[in-house]
Amino acid sequence: MKHPIFFTMFMVCSFSLFGQTTNKEDSTMLRQIYDMALLEGKSYDWLDYLSNEIGGRLSGSIEAERAVEYTKKELEKLGLDKVWLQPVMVPKWTRGIPEYAFIETAPGITSIVNVCALGGSVATPDGGLKAEVIEVQGVEDLAKYGREKIEGKIVFYNRPMQANLIETHAAYGGCVDQRYDGAREAAKYGAVGVVVRSMNLRQDDLPHTGAMSYGDTPESKRIPACAISTNAANYLSMALKLKSDLNFFFKQNCKMYQDVLSYNVIGEITGTEFPNQYMVVGGHLDSWDLGDGSHDDGAGCVQSMEVVRLFKKMNYKPRHSLRVVLFMNEENGLRGGNKYAEEAQLKKEDHVFGLESDSGGFSPRGFSFDTDEANLAQVKSWEPLFKPYLIHYFENGYSGADIGPLKNDKIVLSGLHPDSQRYFDYHHASNDTFDAINKRELELGGAAMTSLVYLFDKYGTRSELKDLKK
Amino acid sequence: MKHPIFFTMFMVCSFSLFGQTTNKEDSTMLRQIYDMALLEGKSYDWLDYLSNEIGGRLSGSIEAERAVEYTKKELEKLGLDKVWLQPVMVPKWTRGIPEYAFIETAPGITSIVNVCALGGSVATPDGGLKAEVIEVQGVEDLAKYGREKIEGKIVFYNRPMQANLIETHAAYGGCVDQRYDGAREAAKYGAVGVVVRSMNLRQDDLPHTGAMSYGDTPESKRIPACAISTNAANYLSMALKLKSDLNFFFKQNCKMYQDVLSYNVIGEITGTEFPNQYMVVGGHLDSWDLGDGSHDDGAGCVQSMEVVRLFKKMNYKPRHSLRVVLFMNEENGLRGGNKYAEEAQLKKEDHVFGLESDSGGFSPRGFSFDTDEANLAQVKSWEPLFKPYLIHYFENGYSGADIGPLKNDKIVLSGLHPDSQRYFDYHHASNDTFDAINKRELELGGAAMTSLVYLFDKYGTRSELKDLKK
Repeated sequence: MKHPIFFTMFMVCSFSLFGQTTNKEDSTMLRQIYDMALLEGKSYDWLDYLSNEIGGRLSGSIEAERAVEYTKKELEKLGLDKVWLQPVMVPKWTRGIPEYAFIETAPGITSIVNVCALGGSVATPDGGLKAEVIEVQGVEDLAKYGREKIEGKIVFYNRPMQANLIETHAAYGGCVDQRYDGAREAAKYGAVGVVVRSMNLRQDDLPHTGAMSYGDTPESKRIPACAISTNAANYLSMALKLKSDLNFFFKQNCKMYQDVLSYNVIGEITGTEFPNQYMVVGGHLDSWDLGDGSHDDGAGCVQSMEVVRLFKKMNYKPRHSLRVVLFMNEENGLRGGNKYAEEAQLKKEDHVFGLESDSGGFSPRGFSFDTDEANLAQVKSWEPLFKPYLIHYFENGYSGADIGPLKNDKIVLSGLHPDSQRYFDYHHASNDTFDAINKRELELGGAAMTSLVYLFDKYGTRSELKDLKK
Repeated sequence: MKHPIFFTMFMVCSFSLFGQTTNKEDSTMLRQIYDMALLEGKSYDWLDYLSNEIGGRLSGSIEAERAVEYTKKELEKLGLDKVWLQPVMVPKWTRGIPEYAFIETAPGITSIVNVCALGGSVATPDGGLKAEVIEVQGVEDLAKYGREKIEGKIVFYNRPMQANLIETHAAYGGCVDQRYDGAREAAKYGAVGVVVRSMNLRQDDLPHTGAMSYGDTPESKRIPACAISTNAANYLSMALKLKSDLNFFFKQNCKMYQDVLSYNVIGEITGTEFPNQYMVVGGHLDSWDLGDGSHDDGAGCVQSMEVVRLFKKMNYKPRHSLRVVLFMNEENGLRGGNKYAEEAQLKKEDHVFGLESDSGGFSPRGFSFDTDEANLAQVKSWEPLFKPYLIHYFENGYSGADIGPLKNDKIVLSGLHPDSQRYFDYHHASNDTFDAINKRELELGGAAMTSLVYLFDKYGTRSELKDLKK
């Protein structure tokens, strides 16, 4: 019986000693990170350039290519060990000249409404598309109405986001099938077009674009799909109650081209102890075209760049190799995220930790994790370190689209979790612009990310610890 | 030994039973509160009227009186047990025609800069005031420079808010003495005027007003004081480095009148069990005049009104009497808060709980408390109930100016604690307007307040429990 007791005592003593030492060192380190981020941060200036000098960065656009060049150049200035571009073929879809739409309640009696083509949609015929409308509350309703009531009509998906869900991402998740699957499903019933209520919790005049998919629908059967502003959706719904056989007209001029070459932008600080174990921090460099993509996801890119910049500035040399990855084409293809994971697998690169910021540049609340209970427990043990910075959210959940393909049994995946209340006010709309960014909130997000990367680098993931025990 | 054991067992059982029952009931109640606040809230409409139909509500102004009338009428619609106005004499200070200022680096070479009179300041002479400038980093610097270097000059207080403090209120607290005491102190050294860097963490062109005090300085010795935008403060500081004897000119046309009659607006739901024990929830109805006072503190008023509205809607009858109080004159006198407390004392009203919302209508993080450890421990036991709503902050600290005068050994005082990052972007400036309010964030604050009032009403304060034991 002696050994177990001594062993236990030793464990308790060393753990306690270890715990105390590291906690003081860690809290000093976090304070330093936050001071630097808030007093001499660089993320806001980077975002200013990306948003105001470059603008919306749709995959395959000149703006996207300029963003690749700019961020590569900026990473090169940081004195990282390596900076490179990872080639990836991306879809090229263009909006063309602005969309135009109206509701016609009687011949010549029209009300113009704000719409925008959904990303990936086909154009309307040259003269536009005019048809009667059937309003539904979701894809499930199509079977209820059947071909008889749908054929030849425009299907109007009008299920609103649920305002009583506290996390707006949950409200988005409960509606976005209308946008993504709506055209494909409606076409099966002979619909000629699709109008989708914007994924927006506010009542306003801005249409919100976003990806849609035709799946395996043959090209000849693809019908055009647009988003309509929430105000106009309410107006259309009200008008349909008064006159069910009104006409809806829209014209959109979008086009899908052949894939073009683009790049993920990658910078690396090589690890001192585990150079072949990789931590990734990133966001996506592409955006939709209506705004300048400041929240989605310029913010995530510059916050990720800030992580490596702060480490360099503090002369902190991570034990594991740390990569910042600015992924291309999250919005309409995820080609960058997939390419990065494919190449990592080909090269047998051992990725131990991935952190993505793609939920806007708002005041950070914490992180969501895609990991096991042991790792989550380790993270929760860091809560006291984060408390002075009002970072309180550490739960399992969604991490990020771009790092998702890296998932395996071992890697810890995480997503920055900013306050979500205002995110869908701007998401994929023309008001996702630099003026909607608060400098401090952006910087606090970058500081929280840097702190989390520091702690994972220092303490490793639990699966690493398990490996060491073997 | 039997009795203690049985007693302990009984305690454990009943507590556990009680705990379980109430937790389920409580979580259902909170869900109901949040659903109603987010799906059919009224606070945003009320604030729209206060902000856009009435506007800035400086004490003694017509707007303040219109706000008294409007909110009284709206409270009367709610079917409360009583609604009344509590008369209170308030100061009347007016800004007059807009201020005008410039930096003169050589005769006729001028740069116009944005300033505004501080609340309570005297006017400049009719022709304006022009003098050389001495820049200081705070009131403490005056003694260092002495009368010799200050006399006849304008003192320019330019200590900025500290950006690396996580809570912006702390950064404000570290600077606001320049605004409040600056003129009084500078006058002692013969200064002729005061220019104060705006209490704003952003670099922008908006001057931020706010209260200042001359203390017992005789009227003849009072010098005019204005706030200058952060951009202009940086410009002035830079210009002074290039030319230390430049002149600063400002003209302001403000005036202090005799006190006038105004009112606190009060509504009450009389308690079912403890009608003579009062819970107060409130904000202040007055605001500064530059914006429309949406964040400071229209938000707090309509959130407080929402608390009693939700209780009525849910047909929840509080055990203690619940009062909503819209205090007059928080900004430049605190006459309303003082009057309410005085009258409560005169009438020997037993106030057990006070909750104020006066930190903006931003996404709520929790509450700060001015109470003892026992009460704080009770509050912390409610954390799991609030977790689904991302309410995580429960710490002792500042509660609110208006409810402060109610403080005694027994009452629990609390302040809603919204995210503070953007508060000072708008505080006391012309951009504190309705468009800076997010509907959901406002409603979430009202729901959190209603939940806290419900819990205090149900479980009482610990001091009440102690009283019962007597």
